[in-house]
Amino acid sequence: MPTDAVLLVVLDLTGTFAFALGGALTALRATRLDVFGVVTLGMITALGGGTIRDVLLDALPPATFVDGRYLAVACAGGLVAAYAGPHLHRLATPILVADAAGLAVFAVTGATKATGLGFGPAQAVIVGAITAVGGGTLRDIAIGRVPAVLTSGFYAIPALIGATATVALGALGVATPTAAVAGALLCLVLRLVAVRYDLHGPFPLAVPEPEPEPRD
Amino acid sequence: MPTDAVLLVVLDLTGTFAFALGGALTALRATRLDVFGVVTLGMITALGGGTIRDVLLDALPPATFVDGRYLAVACAGGLVAAYAGPHLHRLATPILVADAAGLAVFAVTGATKATGLGFGPAQAVIVGAITAVGGGTLRDIAIGRVPAVLTSGFYAIPALIGATATVALGALGVATPTAAVAGALLCLVLRLVAVRYDLHGPFPLAVPEPEPEPRD
Amino acid sequence: MPTDAVLLVVLDLTGTFAFALGGALTALRATRLDVFGVVTLGMITALGGGTIRDVLLDALPPATFVDGRYLAVACAGGLVAAYAGPHLHRLATPILVADAAGLAVFAVTGATKATGLGFGPAQAVIVGAITAVGGGTLRDIAIGRVPAVLTSGFYAIPALIGATATVALGALGVATPTAAVAGALLCLVLRLVAVRYDLHGPFPLAVPEPEPEPRD
Repeated sequence: MPTDAVLLVVLDLTGTFAFALGGALTALRATRLDVFGVVTLGMITALGGGTIRDVLLDALPPATFVDGRYLAVACAGGLVAAYAGPHLHRLATPILVADAAGLAVFAVTGATKATGLGFGPAQAVIVGAITAVGGGTLRDIAIGRVPAVLTSGFYAIPALIGATATVALGALGVATPTAAVAGALLCLVLRLVAVRYDLHGPFPLAVPEPEPEPRD
Repeated sequence: MPTDAVLLVVLDLTGTFAFALGGALTALRATRLDVFGVVTLGMITALGGGTIRDVLLDALPPATFVDGRYLAVACAGGLVAAYAGPHLHRLATPILVADAAGLAVFAVTGATKATGLGFGPAQAVIVGAITAVGGGTLRDIAIGRVPAVLTSGFYAIPALIGATATVALGALGVATPTAAVAGALLCLVLRLVAVRYDLHGPFPLAVPEPEPEPRD
Repeated sequence: MPTDAVLLVVLDLTGTFAFALGGALTALRATRLDVFGVVTLGMITALGGGTIRDVLLDALPPATFVDGRYLAVACAGGLVAAYAGPHLHRLATPILVADAAGLAVFAVTGATKATGLGFGPAQAVIVGAITAVGGGTLRDIAIGRVPAVLTSGFYAIPALIGATATVALGALGVATPTAAVAGALLCLVLRLVAVRYDLHGPFPLAVPEPEPEPRD
């Protein structure tokens, strides 16, 4: 249905913008980069997840690369952050909200794209989650941080839940736009609640002895 | 031959489990992660090499993604590590053995998959080695360590030798299962001997002057 | 035209050698690696950009992997650096020049390959720049540095300009070899001038308050 395809692209571009904004704001705070570095980190954050998604789905060349709108929107998001960011009173909250919005949208667009290409529900949920966490993971690695997907307990989990909700609603006959928006909102709320209340999974028991890093 | 294909999958799943276990145990020691972070690092370690392999072989979508067994086994290996790891007296040895086992198995399954897809012997050996070192490299980058493939002298070399043995035995008419198991055992023994005796290649002569990092 | 294809391969192998040399020299200085580690980092630097390029262009399996000349030239560049590097008086300048040469050549070969596969001018310019900066970015991430594409103002920009010049000259009817060499020289000169005079883009205004890294 053309309308569904349009919605998917609109959602995907929204997520691209949000991730570019959040990634570039992270660059502003994490390290002293000129405007090109800030925009580049925003673009890596915004386009990384969709590129990994399209490799996994064998949907090459990736839409993030051949469809100029993704590049333009990612660049715009980075520029907005570079010029508006320094005027914000604090950056932590805008970064968290932009990142959560990108996470929520990419979880459902990744899952929906997989379903549309004929992949089963399990693969759709997994690719949704990978799409959602991929860009932020590349961003964190690029600036030398341990990725949020490892350290931030409820990061992949809200993405998995949002993607599952979208896939399940679609299987129950709910129209794609409704299923996608519902899944994205669910993921967004879960992620923001998790950040607000510092939710995380159980920690493994402490390892018995502090060990030096082996040379090898 | 169906039996050969079955053996290849069994070996591949064994390597997946070993790498998931080793990767998740590394997470336990390297940094304080909750159980989701530990399992995620295990899965990155277990599935990274095979995903890179399938990109290089143009065997997309990657088996690590479309074949649910890889995801399930990787997740199981990570969970076992998260719950059993803290009860181990020391983690260094289990990590090294699990990592060496994954290295050995992926070197030969990567090479065998390449041969089966019609690639030549040189490409098969190289893709075997890349499959073997790929997951551990992603793991080390994710937690901010210089990858073992750079710092640990005999890491890629045993993988190259094991893959070469498998490809050579196959070319001499030895049945695939025998060639694969022989190559994997050779790689495993070489890797463990290298770790035990701290073998490494020659070091380049010292660079004449200590230089500050340039700004650019 | 066969001659054009030959030139493209010659240029591409030149860039591969330059990046392997520069990457391996970086390894000599950045951290104490044995000869296998040094050569491996050289090969990652030399082959990373072309591999990413071929994923984006859906030209899989990547030429860097199936064409043995790339692997051989990358390995040779790494070995030359490992054995000649310690005899150099200083490493900073050779690293910068080798890296700038690889950047210049890959920007135009990436763009030319994209054009040859039927991609439009915008995509050709972008893939040229990604090819050019890709290998060095992987190198920096592997040794734990923030990538030059983020910190070094005029790094992606000369690549974008060189690729644009090549694509524009090609569109104006200039023969491929001339367009490629002209674009590469332009990129090389711009990059060296940028390093020499420490050019960079404008820095965003300072962020108002120093903020602690959030836990999440």
